[in-house]
Amino acid sequence: MRPGLISLAAGFTDNPSLPVTETREIMDAMLRGKSGQPPLQYGTTAGDETLRTLTAQRLALQDGQPAKAKAYQPGRMMITHGSQQFLYILTEILCDPGDIVLVEDPSYFVYLGIMQSHGLRGRGIRLEPDGIDLAHLEATLENLKSTGDLPRLKALYLVSYHSNPTGITTTAAKKAAALKLLRRYEPAAGHRLYLIEDAAYRELRFADDDTPSALTFDRAGNRVIYTSTYSKPYATGVRVGYGLLPGPLLTAALRVKANHDFGTTNLLQQLITRALTTGAYDAHVQTLRARYAQKARAMVRACHENLPAGVKWTDPTGGLYIWARMPARVKTDLKSPLFAAALKQKMLYVPGNLCYCPDPARRRPNREMRLSFGSENTRNVTKGIARLGRALKKVL
Amino acid sequence: MRPGLISLAAGFTDNPSLPVTETREIMDAMLRGKSGQPPLQYGTTAGDETLRTLTAQRLALQDGQPAKAKAYQPGRMMITHGSQQFLYILTEILCDPGDIVLVEDPSYFVYLGIMQSHGLRGRGIRLEPDGIDLAHLEATLENLKSTGDLPRLKALYLVSYHSNPTGITTTAAKKAAALKLLRRYEPAAGHRLYLIEDAAYRELRFADDDTPSALTFDRAGNRVIYTSTYSKPYATGVRVGYGLLPGPLLTAALRVKANHDFGTTNLLQQLITRALTTGAYDAHVQTLRARYAQKARAMVRACHENLPAGVKWTDPTGGLYIWARMPARVKTDLKSPLFAAALKQKMLYVPGNLCYCPDPARRRPNREMRLSFGSENTRNVTKGIARLGRALKKVL
Repeated sequence: MRPGLISLAAGFTDNPSLPVTETREIMDAMLRGKSGQPPLQYGTTAGDETLRTLTAQRLALQDGQPAKAKAYQPGRMMITHGSQQFLYILTEILCDPGDIVLVEDPSYFVYLGIMQSHGLRGRGIRLEPDGIDLAHLEATLENLKSTGDLPRLKALYLVSYHSNPTGITTTAAKKAAALKLLRRYEPAAGHRLYLIEDAAYRELRFADDDTPSALTFDRAGNRVIYTSTYSKPYATGVRVGYGLLPGPLLTAALRVKANHDFGTTNLLQQLITRALTTGAYDAHVQTLRARYAQKARAMVRACHENLPAGVKWTDPTGGLYIWARMPARVKTDLKSPLFAAALKQKMLYVPGNLCYCPDPARRRPNREMRLSFGSENTRNVTKGIARLGRALKKVL
Repeated sequence: MRPGLISLAAGFTDNPSLPVTETREIMDAMLRGKSGQPPLQYGTTAGDETLRTLTAQRLALQDGQPAKAKAYQPGRMMITHGSQQFLYILTEILCDPGDIVLVEDPSYFVYLGIMQSHGLRGRGIRLEPDGIDLAHLEATLENLKSTGDLPRLKALYLVSYHSNPTGITTTAAKKAAALKLLRRYEPAAGHRLYLIEDAAYRELRFADDDTPSALTFDRAGNRVIYTSTYSKPYATGVRVGYGLLPGPLLTAALRVKANHDFGTTNLLQQLITRALTTGAYDAHVQTLRARYAQKARAMVRACHENLPAGVKWTDPTGGLYIWARMPARVKTDLKSPLFAAALKQKMLYVPGNLCYCPDPARRRPNREMRLSFGSENTRNVTKGIARLGRALKKVL
């Protein structure tokens, strides 16, 4: 990276808050004598049983459900090298080239990359401040039905909490309605239509107002696939994520996982297990939430102070990002004058067009950007936005 | 696992020799203050630069080549979650469904699983005690040419050191001859034919008589893909492997790796880097070699003492396995009387037929087995073979 460059592009997390001491203490307690051997040995393909059980219990608790509820059984879970690997494997087993996945418009660009690499077609569902536009979801399903494409539809993918890239959280009511809509179109599709809920940023909410996941819905276990991660809330250098999925899909996913790597690195799984049982994880998440909340406020304040009239942005309630829309006719793509001007000011953002799937039903919007307050410190977050303001003024 | 069962099936490594103290000491030194942050942060998709440089240098040294030689440049290397993940990604970018890969007959069964999951066709090349039968390789290439299948051929995959499952090491001369043969058929294939050298067990040789890799050959950098791992020689619970490959393939592989997991867990990479620089890794490998050599001798001795006449086995010079062939008419598959009898004696082996790819040119042999001295202790290795002997006597 160029010296002096402030990157509000990277989805990295905050360096000074990384749990260095906590991790050292866990390793020190864990790697002793005979009980120190299992973390250094192969584990199982599905992942450490204690970690799966703890994770399932925590999730049920978060969702206000009894730990015995069917959708939360540890036997439905696999541990992966980050939720990213879960998404990759899931897509591999669920979809064939030419299949269709519905995504938020805009959506997580790495997932769009996975779709592209598997030869999938995407359809973007418009976003409102509380999640996808249900009328647009219905219209899209109806359109796929009328064009005969519905049998190629496999799933709806939602980054449902403090989304990457927009910061938007989908309400439980919208998730329920979306699932109901998918079910209604299943007969025409000829197979199940899954709701993939990517909750990677759920733990990084700033307040205590959690939203129930789609697993809470009636008979959700058969149609909801839920994935989240310990990497972002604990340490991005520790790649441990997980997914819950219906039995037949799990069997297929485990077969692929065995071919990938035989199972997630045991040392990392047992590190997370210990962080959970000692309370180090929860304490760390509390610290992180406060830290990101403070940096988010700084970014929003800097936007108010530095960005010209006509620029709009989201006010995040969690996660790592705000989403900003430029005035009409100001493009944001990699080749745009604004991107070049920002770079000249030594400031980097993620162009919004990269977060839109190719979709024949609309042109790819090109006046937005993702701004991350994850990795830079408060001072640089503020400075970065000021630089963006200067770049914008040059371009306008 | 059933209580009292002795598994000579698992490819696990030896528990008591796992580097528990070494790993604790490295973590303790590494996870301190500001320098403890990078191991807990995201790294790059290709992997830690220091680790790639160290690995490339060590490899050049092992091969007796100057570190500057083109084939050993760190820029040609990617770090993966075990060499397994490298093989998976490589197969994904190199092959389309219906393509053909030549494999040793028998070969590593997990790689056969990867081939199957990608819809590939295999052709088995007969093995001799010093590697593949070159005449059979040539005949197979000629046959593919005559049937018009050569354009679907992509690579020859060799587990070249103390192979899984046979323990056989391929000589440098045979690797050179194989590469030459592949080159000769390239014009008819219409594209490059790669030699994939899987050196996962290279470090686990019992004596100091290392064999040069195929990277040492003239212009090898364009056609040889080399992969190995730190997991087996250091700790299987630490999933760090690597691959060296030609530039255009590397670019494609990194794109897939980014979709899988953004890059290998940094904490593990930096652990291995420290183990290399402190000498802990080399010391550990020496210990492991002595330990496995001793267990291999115990297994071979037990075979001499317990197995009836007509049974043949390999005498390994490294790795974790011996390969045994039963007398004619004694089947070894999962449904065979011998497998059941062994299980009744509380002993487990890997049936040999699982290590043969489906190949229209031959029936899948079904009188062999893989026996691992990796995870059980010396006493159990000996006991396990005695049990196999008893099972064989019941069946014969």
